[in-house]
Amino acid sequence: MKKVLITGFDPFGGEKINPALEAVKKLKDIEFSNIELRVKEIPTVFYKSIKILEDTVREFEPDVVICIGQAGGRSEITVERVAINVIDARIPDNENNKLVDTPIIEDGAAAYFSTIPIKDIVLNIKKAGIPASVSNTAGTFVCNQLLYGLMHVISTKYNNITGGFIHIPYLPEQAANYNNQPSMSLLDMVKALEIAVNVAAQNVLE
Amino acid sequence: MKKVLITGFDPFGGEKINPALEAVKKLKDIEFSNIELRVKEIPTVFYKSIKILEDTVREFEPDVVICIGQAGGRSEITVERVAINVIDARIPDNENNKLVDTPIIEDGAAAYFSTIPIKDIVLNIKKAGIPASVSNTAGTFVCNQLLYGLMHVISTKYNNITGGFIHIPYLPEQAANYNNQPSMSLLDMVKALEIAVNVAAQNVLE
Amino acid sequence: MKKVLITGFDPFGGEKINPALEAVKKLKDIEFSNIELRVKEIPTVFYKSIKILEDTVREFEPDVVICIGQAGGRSEITVERVAINVIDARIPDNENNKLVDTPIIEDGAAAYFSTIPIKDIVLNIKKAGIPASVSNTAGTFVCNQLLYGLMHVISTKYNNITGGFIHIPYLPEQAANYNNQPSMSLLDMVKALEIAVNVAAQNVLE
Amino acid sequence: MKKVLITGFDPFGGEKINPALEAVKKLKDIEFSNIELRVKEIPTVFYKSIKILEDTVREFEPDVVICIGQAGGRSEITVERVAINVIDARIPDNENNKLVDTPIIEDGAAAYFSTIPIKDIVLNIKKAGIPASVSNTAGTFVCNQLLYGLMHVISTKYNNITGGFIHIPYLPEQAANYNNQPSMSLLDMVKALEIAVNVAAQNVLE
Repeated sequence: MKKVLITGFDPFGGEKINPALEAVKKLKDIEFSNIELRVKEIPTVFYKSIKILEDTVREFEPDVVICIGQAGGRSEITVERVAINVIDARIPDNENNKLVDTPIIEDGAAAYFSTIPIKDIVLNIKKAGIPASVSNTAGTFVCNQLLYGLMHVISTKYNNITGGFIHIPYLPEQAANYNNQPSMSLLDMVKALEIAVNVAAQNVLE
Repeated sequence: MKKVLITGFDPFGGEKINPALEAVKKLKDIEFSNIELRVKEIPTVFYKSIKILEDTVREFEPDVVICIGQAGGRSEITVERVAINVIDARIPDNENNKLVDTPIIEDGAAAYFSTIPIKDIVLNIKKAGIPASVSNTAGTFVCNQLLYGLMHVISTKYNNITGGFIHIPYLPEQAANYNNQPSMSLLDMVKALEIAVNVAAQNVLE
Repeated sequence: MKKVLITGFDPFGGEKINPALEAVKKLKDIEFSNIELRVKEIPTVFYKSIKILEDTVREFEPDVVICIGQAGGRSEITVERVAINVIDARIPDNENNKLVDTPIIEDGAAAYFSTIPIKDIVLNIKKAGIPASVSNTAGTFVCNQLLYGLMHVISTKYNNITGGFIHIPYLPEQAANYNNQPSMSLLDMVKALEIAVNVAAQNVLE
Repeated sequence: MKKVLITGFDPFGGEKINPALEAVKKLKDIEFSNIELRVKEIPTVFYKSIKILEDTVREFEPDVVICIGQAGGRSEITVERVAINVIDARIPDNENNKLVDTPIIEDGAAAYFSTIPIKDIVLNIKKAGIPASVSNTAGTFVCNQLLYGLMHVISTKYNNITGGFIHIPYLPEQAANYNNQPSMSLLDMVKALEIAVNVAAQNVLE
């Protein structure tokens, strides 16, 4: 039995829903074999998001942590390879902080690589008929910040945890409000995340 | 009771499935009120497609005809406004005809406008949370040819029929084979087409 | 000696410049062989644009008319194949007219095909190292309206004139104000239009 | 007088030219004030590219190093923020090495940030009317590898040098061979790089 923590951000940037939160909630209804799943909502707020994530890690003691965020404009499930030590936000977070060219952690490492098996996750999601790819940038907003914070916490305190971040597209009902934006059904997002959880946990077992 | 004919092309261009065919087949399982629905598969072949469509129209005597085709690369359900009198194909059709800069009908009208309520259909699909827009070009391949052929047949022989064409994106399992291509779930496609059928039939009733 | 009329729209939609106008002005400095070139600025206003174009045609008696417009978001020189008989504008024109789903000419033909040699023009522009392609939609704003109006005038009164429309991308200084928009240098635009003028005039000579 | 080294890759991936090489060659013809400019061609080969860059740095002793590479598909001049410690190549380099998921430097830092003033460079290029933006990923091919190698060399041996990497789009003559690819004129690329050199050197002077 492996313990997997999966997180989803709350809505931001004027959106009323965040597909990340919708998708991770649905994961609760899925029966996983040999996996104890914990789902946690994370506020789209700099640093507070890392704090809540770290508190949950301390309490739940997971083997795997995967954070989920929305990447409006992307067509595919994108599994992030790396987080860089910078916040450079075009829009304020949900507590109205607007940070520009700020290190996430002063004197921290320039970057952390995700340690979940990103290529295997992408391969298995695609095998299931859902578009997916590896991404080399998680941006410079709250998502990149959370992945960086997660991997920093893991690197400094919990070396046996593997961690990562997955971006998911707009939901169709969000894209319907824009012009010509790609989207993905909640069902396919949930299926993709289920696969990611299984592949990442299996990777720990081996 | 109104009669609606809906058609879907068979796979082409190296694809094993065509979302148009998959989606229209699923429409058979839906119970429509006051609508008799006929679903017809159409070969992705120049002229033969028009011939089969016309034969079905003659036999079924529909009030509304909506043809469905795949538009790989598009993110949304796109309801076509117009068909132009030209075939200009980059790839051969399914019987290996490759036609370039050829009129569909010699001395035919330069174009025909669709007569289904395209704006209302788009509006109602979007209201249902599915991305949609009006398109001003159906291309110059078999899809545009079929819409042109349909509207020519209607214009010359069946003035009381309203007709149109709807393009749908790749299915996720198709997009999973490409890099960074948008897609839409079959469920949402079917829902969008159900709405289109209802709105187009309602428009006739009024 | 053949007479070629080339037109460019004035700026619209909040832009301070229109690459079409900038480019056609530069054409005046080019020495063409066996071509008398007339350059005309056209206001981005429904119907008035057609009126001024028709007046200039009547007065100048050209063999070839090519209208130039801006297509923000396109990467290439796009030579339009066809204009359709509809105005459906998202934004008002320069005299604040906002027209939706209106025929350009009541009971006019559904569409007119351009009669300049679109494939030859594209081929020769590409040979000169400038990206170009045929476009199957000129949109539903003032550009499509002008091409439709031009071809209607030609079709009804001046059968010996060949006419067409070419869209050009943003200039770099326009794209510098947006996020991630393609552009093209004025020099390349002018070179492409020079080629278009020569190919279109040569086509008449033959 | 400050010394600036600027490098450009040779053609790769089936292309006959590399805009990076074409552009940096043209920089030789520009007279800079208070700047001694050295231009160096770099082979598109893993590690050999870093070796040649390091040799040139040792010999020339520059204050600033800016490496230039082609980013086909991008519309703008993109100034890279960061390089990550991984090679993950879809295509082989020019000596047929194909490396997948390999660290550039075993046990090296996860990433290095560029130290040239990326925001100032972007701002000044845009002021000059040329589209530009900061990029958060230099990819995982030879370009990212060279920036990583450069910053590693600087970090370990030459702390007083500032370094960075700028990606430039296809040239129009390259884009003319593809469908619908953005491009930029050589003149604008050269102007943008001239600005980058001046801004980066000025930054050192201050």
